[in-house]
Amino acid sequence: MSEPFTSPIKTVQEIPELRTLIQSQRKQDASIGFVPTMGALHAGHVSLIEAAREECDFVVVSIFVNPTQFGPNEDFDSYPRLLAQDLEKCQTAGADLVWVPTTDIMYPPHFSTYVEVKTLSEILEGATRTNHFQGVTTIVTKLLLSCLPDKAFFGAKDYQQQAIIRQMCLDLNIPVEIKTCPTVRDADGLALSSRNTYLSETERESALSLSHALNLAKEKIQAGETNLSHIKTEMQRLLTTTPLVKLDYATIVDAQTLEEIETPHPKMVALVAAFVGTTRLIDNCTLN
Amino acid sequence: MSEPFTSPIKTVQEIPELRTLIQSQRKQDASIGFVPTMGALHAGHVSLIEAAREECDFVVVSIFVNPTQFGPNEDFDSYPRLLAQDLEKCQTAGADLVWVPTTDIMYPPHFSTYVEVKTLSEILEGATRTNHFQGVTTIVTKLLLSCLPDKAFFGAKDYQQQAIIRQMCLDLNIPVEIKTCPTVRDADGLALSSRNTYLSETERESALSLSHALNLAKEKIQAGETNLSHIKTEMQRLLTTTPLVKLDYATIVDAQTLEEIETPHPKMVALVAAFVGTTRLIDNCTLN
Repeated sequence: MSEPFTSPIKTVQEIPELRTLIQSQRKQDASIGFVPTMGALHAGHVSLIEAAREECDFVVVSIFVNPTQFGPNEDFDSYPRLLAQDLEKCQTAGADLVWVPTTDIMYPPHFSTYVEVKTLSEILEGATRTNHFQGVTTIVTKLLLSCLPDKAFFGAKDYQQQAIIRQMCLDLNIPVEIKTCPTVRDADGLALSSRNTYLSETERESALSLSHALNLAKEKIQAGETNLSHIKTEMQRLLTTTPLVKLDYATIVDAQTLEEIETPHPKMVALVAAFVGTTRLIDNCTLN
Repeated sequence: MSEPFTSPIKTVQEIPELRTLIQSQRKQDASIGFVPTMGALHAGHVSLIEAAREECDFVVVSIFVNPTQFGPNEDFDSYPRLLAQDLEKCQTAGADLVWVPTTDIMYPPHFSTYVEVKTLSEILEGATRTNHFQGVTTIVTKLLLSCLPDKAFFGAKDYQQQAIIRQMCLDLNIPVEIKTCPTVRDADGLALSSRNTYLSETERESALSLSHALNLAKEKIQAGETNLSHIKTEMQRLLTTTPLVKLDYATIVDAQTLEEIETPHPKMVALVAAFVGTTRLIDNCTLN
């Protein structure tokens, strides 16, 4: 029952079988790279798999739409599930093995353990999406401890997520190196997201306001602006005046602590989040 | 700075050095046994090290008095610290390596991640000792992920603790087998505990009421008593009528869920907790 898919690439469902396959690679001194995903793979995911291929001997991709990181009014049911084409993309990008666990495997009866990163999980995305990061940190712990990779690859687009996962691995002594790869964008600047498929044509046009707001911040900093409040206000004005956009936040934070900053800082990041129609999008860029 | 102790047994402080030592054993196909302790070792701990010695090729003991599992009014400061004699006991019992991390190593600045097992952590000990089990599950995760042993050994005396740790390892896919070893008792029946050293002579006499209450339950069950409420009441009466004893709970629960039960069950455990003077003691026995 462990290979239910007809696919061009080796797939596995159960954790003991996954471990056996990884273990046999380890015995041959292969380094293990791991790319956890929720499927609906786009060029951003592909770039993570390619980075893993570049740096590691054996590349494992997981595909699992994790229910515990979706809120009750969020898009768990409608989240795109495109397994056949995802497997093809994994193969083309150079993965060696795709792990596709079921929900019952990840959350068996009596499951009751949660991993939580305080403070970092409570702000920004965490302020709007209650328990989202607890769902993320719990599943990422489970995925990492099932694979025990040398390196795991995450996208910079989910900036807060990768910061939280770094803190978590450090705090819990999870023996893995976290690699954060650059955000991949469409030609017009829109950050790739599996949720972009929800956007209508006019919404997609409005969604460009997120990257425009970030570019505005970058240009202001490059032009020598030191009044960060002023920049944040301009980012917010750009977003609030775009049709179909409902701003959540547009801010500038310390790259490590994610605390909002008022004066320029050697390592700072601009972060934006907004609904475009009914689709929630996020984006960010470093400002140094 | 990693071996600050003059000791008869190899000790290590830093996690990277610990990992290097364990890794070199793994390369030789040695199985790794791990016994996490808070030091102040007694014959109960020694039995865990001996069990690890019996079952594994390389035995690691950790000694760390974990601050996060003590409440603000508990005995963290006065908890016995007896490193020199602990190291001797480790050596005699057959340990290969003793890991003695500092608090700064386990909880560096900005530490903010916690592991929590819901439900099981909220009852019995958890009802009285707020956040105790969150401290335990967080540190045990850290210890296990630093060592990555094949087997880890815990004492049955802390019955709820080992049940919670089993659930946590299952839920988080921590790749370790949890072994629970029998409670070791003094000749008069008192379960060994590092906290027994706090007891005066008269308190120690009163402390025997815990094992007496458990024996009473065992005898009643063996005699065919099926009214568990009746047995619990008798256990409670025995404890509340003993001088110097302040009962917390004396109950009979399902061995897995730790839920209180009213009718006999194939797998049940009697659990008691009480202050004797100012010292909080626990004990338990299976009833089948």
